[in-house]
Amino acid sequence: MSDLARLSINSETIKQWSLEELVAGCVEAGVPGIAPWREPVQEYGVERAAWLIRDAGLTVTSLCRGGFYTAAEPVQRRAALDDNLRAIDEAAALNCPVLVLVSGGLGADDRDLVGARRRVADALAELAPYAGERGVQLAIEPLHPMYCSDRCVVSTLAQALDLAEPFPAEQVGVVVDTYHSWWDPELDVQVRRAGETGRLALFQVADWVTPLPEGVLLGRGQLGDGHVPLREIRELVDSTGHDGPVEVEIFNPALWARNGAEVLTEVIQRYRDHLV
Amino acid sequence: MSDLARLSINSETIKQWSLEELVAGCVEAGVPGIAPWREPVQEYGVERAAWLIRDAGLTVTSLCRGGFYTAAEPVQRRAALDDNLRAIDEAAALNCPVLVLVSGGLGADDRDLVGARRRVADALAELAPYAGERGVQLAIEPLHPMYCSDRCVVSTLAQALDLAEPFPAEQVGVVVDTYHSWWDPELDVQVRRAGETGRLALFQVADWVTPLPEGVLLGRGQLGDGHVPLREIRELVDSTGHDGPVEVEIFNPALWARNGAEVLTEVIQRYRDHLV
Repeated sequence: MSDLARLSINSETIKQWSLEELVAGCVEAGVPGIAPWREPVQEYGVERAAWLIRDAGLTVTSLCRGGFYTAAEPVQRRAALDDNLRAIDEAAALNCPVLVLVSGGLGADDRDLVGARRRVADALAELAPYAGERGVQLAIEPLHPMYCSDRCVVSTLAQALDLAEPFPAEQVGVVVDTYHSWWDPELDVQVRRAGETGRLALFQVADWVTPLPEGVLLGRGQLGDGHVPLREIRELVDSTGHDGPVEVEIFNPALWARNGAEVLTEVIQRYRDHLV
Repeated sequence: MSDLARLSINSETIKQWSLEELVAGCVEAGVPGIAPWREPVQEYGVERAAWLIRDAGLTVTSLCRGGFYTAAEPVQRRAALDDNLRAIDEAAALNCPVLVLVSGGLGADDRDLVGARRRVADALAELAPYAGERGVQLAIEPLHPMYCSDRCVVSTLAQALDLAEPFPAEQVGVVVDTYHSWWDPELDVQVRRAGETGRLALFQVADWVTPLPEGVLLGRGQLGDGHVPLREIRELVDSTGHDGPVEVEIFNPALWARNGAEVLTEVIQRYRDHLV
């Protein structure tokens, strides 16, 4: 088995590539998995993308992303839920087993964190059975607490697992992302809990580097550049019996400014050095 | 009793003021407490500062800050611990009941978060009895997880309370700071735990605003400008029986650029609007 057998490249890591370029680049480099964002898939056409990826012999490891259903206002809320139903359909069409969910944050003058978190639970109750019928597992992604107000009110693995608990594991699981959760004092306990309950839906990796840039969205580090004990966390994840893909998702303008093939070669090298 | 009876101003909030100006300004405005950082106190002279503050009829609610003892290298580590012993002496000289501890982060190429956290526990074991003998309570401050690599490997109240547990409560407590902990899904549970175990040493307030600035150090919001339910958290803290000071600690260059007295007036108004 190739040492890249579990590697998957999230499309945002090499955002300068089109979906076709990403597919061709991964085939060329011997990378078996990709995790596209919805935008490039929609642009290319969902059915057409499904054929493109299947014909190339690649696997779609996850679709990024649904979520953003924390609005209290009914019309906005309904639109968000409908968009998530479409995202589930897209995942199913791509034969993709996992839809990543980023919950959304608080409104402009909103201080009701408890209310927003309650609405996340309500949204899951509507979406989970629909996803289950289509063979798609929803994967709640806790984002780093620095995104709590503007992107994701789900901040820890414990909280994501609590939210998942009312639903069957095949309908709702969680994402373990090293960038978002490496600091968590409960990381080992909660990764084990996710494994034992069959809810470890997806493992994503990026490194933590400082100083963080303004807005803190695009500061993820190339594997090995930062403070995350990547191999240790991969081993922790594997110790639960997980043997699924290792998805590299890095948002970093310095990588986007470079030649895509060069970035992929570097990611593969870093993956070998810090994860395998 | 004045509605400002519990208000204390951390010297960093109005950093443009000298210690003398801060003392005079607080007396003038009817604010009974101040929380100086060590630097302005050392600059003015510790004994002299103690007299200045006592003569003005003000209370020192905490001294900021000790800590930064995560280095593994023995000479650096010893220097850090010695500096903390001095900080305890300074707190005692100021008749200040609480020394705030910010643990420190990871070294440049360090990925050993577990080791750094173990060294925090070791440091407390040396410092706690020394502090206890001098009537100073060490207050472990969990910093927001976005500071985990560069400033503070203690990220949650649960973790701070676990670190405090081996020591008597009068020696080691914790800081509840709305800026650092507002996002924590366990905030209510852990604040109650802190209260019940007599370890709620200090309550600090600042608001959470976005976008965060580059480096994320100086982005704290004026009270009421952001997403933190300040009054709710104050009520939660009080529900444990805590009736100590409410310390306003805001790092914000926009406040530092203004007239100090004007900033103090605004802080007092915001305190009345969002906390009392």
